[in-house]
Amino acid sequence: MSVPKYKIPEMIDLPDRQWPSKSITQSPQWCSVDMRDGNQALPDPMDPDQKLEYFQMLCEIGFKHIEVGFPSASQDEFDFFRKLIEEDLIPDDVFIMGLTQSRPHLIERTLEAFKGCKRGIVHAYIAPSDLHMKQVFGMERPQLIETAVAATRQIRALADAMPESDIRYEFSPEEYTDTDVDFSLELCEAVFAAWGKGTPEKPVIMNLPATVERRPPNHYADMIEYFCRNFSKRDCITVSLHSHNDQGMAVAATELALMAGADRVEGTLFGHGERTGNVDLVTCINNLYSRGIDTGMDFSDLGHVAETVERLTGMPIYYRQPYAGSYAFTAFSGSHQDAINKGVHKLSEAPDRFGMGWKVPYLHIDPSDLGRKFERLIRINSQSGKGGIAWVLEQDFGIEIPKAMQPELGRYVQAYSEKVGREISADEVHQVFQSEFVAPEGPYELIGYWPRPDDNDPTFIHGEVKVKVNGGEKVVSADGNGPVSAFVAAINQIVEVDFTVDDYHEQAVGKGADAQALAYVPLKLEGNGVVFGVGADSNINQAAVRAIVAGLNRIAKK
Amino acid sequence: MSVPKYKIPEMIDLPDRQWPSKSITQSPQWCSVDMRDGNQALPDPMDPDQKLEYFQMLCEIGFKHIEVGFPSASQDEFDFFRKLIEEDLIPDDVFIMGLTQSRPHLIERTLEAFKGCKRGIVHAYIAPSDLHMKQVFGMERPQLIETAVAATRQIRALADAMPESDIRYEFSPEEYTDTDVDFSLELCEAVFAAWGKGTPEKPVIMNLPATVERRPPNHYADMIEYFCRNFSKRDCITVSLHSHNDQGMAVAATELALMAGADRVEGTLFGHGERTGNVDLVTCINNLYSRGIDTGMDFSDLGHVAETVERLTGMPIYYRQPYAGSYAFTAFSGSHQDAINKGVHKLSEAPDRFGMGWKVPYLHIDPSDLGRKFERLIRINSQSGKGGIAWVLEQDFGIEIPKAMQPELGRYVQAYSEKVGREISADEVHQVFQSEFVAPEGPYELIGYWPRPDDNDPTFIHGEVKVKVNGGEKVVSADGNGPVSAFVAAINQIVEVDFTVDDYHEQAVGKGADAQALAYVPLKLEGNGVVFGVGADSNINQAAVRAIVAGLNRIAKK
Repeated sequence: MSVPKYKIPEMIDLPDRQWPSKSITQSPQWCSVDMRDGNQALPDPMDPDQKLEYFQMLCEIGFKHIEVGFPSASQDEFDFFRKLIEEDLIPDDVFIMGLTQSRPHLIERTLEAFKGCKRGIVHAYIAPSDLHMKQVFGMERPQLIETAVAATRQIRALADAMPESDIRYEFSPEEYTDTDVDFSLELCEAVFAAWGKGTPEKPVIMNLPATVERRPPNHYADMIEYFCRNFSKRDCITVSLHSHNDQGMAVAATELALMAGADRVEGTLFGHGERTGNVDLVTCINNLYSRGIDTGMDFSDLGHVAETVERLTGMPIYYRQPYAGSYAFTAFSGSHQDAINKGVHKLSEAPDRFGMGWKVPYLHIDPSDLGRKFERLIRINSQSGKGGIAWVLEQDFGIEIPKAMQPELGRYVQAYSEKVGREISADEVHQVFQSEFVAPEGPYELIGYWPRPDDNDPTFIHGEVKVKVNGGEKVVSADGNGPVSAFVAAINQIVEVDFTVDDYHEQAVGKGADAQALAYVPLKLEGNGVVFGVGADSNINQAAVRAIVAGLNRIAKK
Repeated sequence: MSVPKYKIPEMIDLPDRQWPSKSITQSPQWCSVDMRDGNQALPDPMDPDQKLEYFQMLCEIGFKHIEVGFPSASQDEFDFFRKLIEEDLIPDDVFIMGLTQSRPHLIERTLEAFKGCKRGIVHAYIAPSDLHMKQVFGMERPQLIETAVAATRQIRALADAMPESDIRYEFSPEEYTDTDVDFSLELCEAVFAAWGKGTPEKPVIMNLPATVERRPPNHYADMIEYFCRNFSKRDCITVSLHSHNDQGMAVAATELALMAGADRVEGTLFGHGERTGNVDLVTCINNLYSRGIDTGMDFSDLGHVAETVERLTGMPIYYRQPYAGSYAFTAFSGSHQDAINKGVHKLSEAPDRFGMGWKVPYLHIDPSDLGRKFERLIRINSQSGKGGIAWVLEQDFGIEIPKAMQPELGRYVQAYSEKVGREISADEVHQVFQSEFVAPEGPYELIGYWPRPDDNDPTFIHGEVKVKVNGGEKVVSADGNGPVSAFVAAINQIVEVDFTVDDYHEQAVGKGADAQALAYVPLKLEGNGVVFGVGADSNINQAAVRAIVAGLNRIAKK
């Protein structure tokens, strides 16, 4: 055919756009449409009990606008609305919202569902795009405006008949981003006039959806700025966003459109919704949080929210989902692990250097702000490095591997991971550490070491060592100016290698009576490098001595 | 503390930015880093056989730049490089790329890995951000430039010693988006000069990564435009993008930065990579495809690519992933299903109306371009509508439910779905259709119908009906001016309701000897609405008659 199947979407004419120089500096209003857009796209939509739990979770997070359903669509949806109202389950400051098509019998049924509620938002929609009008409705523009105006008047009349309820109005020109902007403006002006009581205190919500993501996000921003600049009573409307993720850019579309002047964002937790989903509010909200903006939302236990949503929707959260995914704050690569490790240890220098309290390589936000623990931050596979391995041992076992020992340990862990051909757990890293450095097989087995202080000079030690060498027991003695040097002098009488010890590290692991000393001892071989051994004992001298025996066994193995 | 934990990232100063008025009109170069960035972030990285299969798949898709690994990082990585080269597994027009830190011994080892390759890209990186320099390296700016320049010279010298290979150079100032842009420019100018042989024909690739997504995507675009406008020899470099998805905006960052003048995009299929992953190239590439841009990439069997990546990485693709996710082109909602149905049936009008061949509600791209079938496009749960149900029966069973019958069928399917409380399959929809409309239980059972044409006027029919009513056999006869009207006259003698039939639909399902007629017959009750029955038979008269009996049974049930 001569007409191409696809074409580049045309931008609207807005050469003097202002939004690219703006930043988001304050939080918009947030509206959850989880129970409507999200729920409708679940293979197994929620039952009333599940919906109630979801609703209560949304209230706890801090949402004040919650689209609860489409009350005219089914008896279940209607009944759930009634239950919330009649059983007084809605916090005083929360608006429940109900969606309806702009059709008289559905509107009537919808307003019935709102009876007796304290605060409600009736949300009517109609699609003014040429695509919908021509291919779906077979309708022309004047007729569409008439339909929307009639619907608005009907809603106003029914709402006016419920003076005890604070009923607000939201209007959505569906597929706003696929509609001529001037026609959308004309339609919204007509709807605003038909509602007739939009004020700065009680604005009409004009929700301008990217129902399908058909354009780059900068187009959405242009179209929002254009609307904001040209609507007659800008201060009497709330400009609301509602984006979908067909091209993977819904979060960006939302951010750019907020820069362009919008006041409010509709979306769902973790992006449930038709097809690729609605915009993910967890990402939007935490993006702003990560820039120091008060969002009014509480995700300090994001794991609990994630678990609840997974259970109620039956849908797992993607492991790479920003903020909530199991891998969102995971580093496999050695250099990343190393840098995170260093950055966290130097956090106290961040305020002076960067003017902010959190500045760490590879982590734009502190995972603990979301209730996420550090244990699983660094994960070990054959691509991991020494820094990450040291981190895991420190975080999970309190074992502080000295820097000089890290490369050698790293090689063993990497070899182990390559051998098993998969990610390895912190326990496995610990096992490699144990079997290679603490209790390696070898010819030497320590029976006991008695470092006896000299009667005249207690710093001077007479050492006696009982050791098995290939099963045969040997006893050797030597003196030194400390327990370790005396042991080295003694043991050197029976081992074949010449070695010295200096610069060893010791640490205590655990507290009180359960405390253990760990000693990391480098054995320097004559012209032959360094081999580390590690020893553990409640007595710090014995720990060091065990470390030396472990090192000797490792040398013998090589 | 007086310093806040987080702050709003500052934009660079670029008030006369040009990118917001630009559109992407041609494809950038695409570079897959699946085997490096992607592989390193898999819990179970690929073994050499898996890597080879992955590499070959990337070549088949059409990638010309493929980062194969980090050859100096481990023996495995090195060996895989050598295998590709020595076994001549690289297509002539494909550049393999190898990553290295800017350190002499790693560079030496890396260039060894390239020996004998036809086309290669050596990719060196260093992080010039204050965060890395101060918190990780403890290095100052002049020292960092010196290190990068020395690395570049070393690579050039080693590459010059391999004149039989076409070795190009890529340099990445890591964390470009967290680095002072002027310092990045200074560093890249120094590196470019040290390479000393960048030309328009063999440009140096300057890869400017958003290693961590710390900023909104418009900031990335500003920083790319600034770089492009200020680099001295713009025509002798390729400006490359490399973005991560920590704030869920990597695809948008890539698009805006392409508008800002970049030439090349690095990423991974489905966004594998550290943490929230690298930018998803499948989304980037298909976004451009959906705007009619020739990307040079073949995703006409995206399902095969997805299955291969899932198998080789061991990681499932997210069900809401754009283009590839199982739900990406799914509609659960009734109004969406209905609109898609209408839009697809009116596609032939799209070129005239919209100047493009594909314009359908809720689908910005034709799923069949990606080898995706329509069967699973519309999925049925309790939120689904009549249009979607009709679509499923038409797509999967060839059953064309008449419009007037759709609401009644819709109510039964919705009730069934609410009862079982989950998504229901096309087979289940078909079962509801069968048990409710084709073979409902009831008092009447047709034994046979003999419509005998009159000897003189064959359009006139003498009908004889044998039927069981509650088990008792009855025979009735009547005449009519067609087989159906004769049957109606006959059967009206024994049924309790008064009904008439008009305007019924018939269709053939299947072909040749296996063809079956389906008849959808509305029984109009006296002042009591319409009840549909459906009949199937190889004989079209018998199908209609069976439909009437089915309708009578349905009436009796009510």
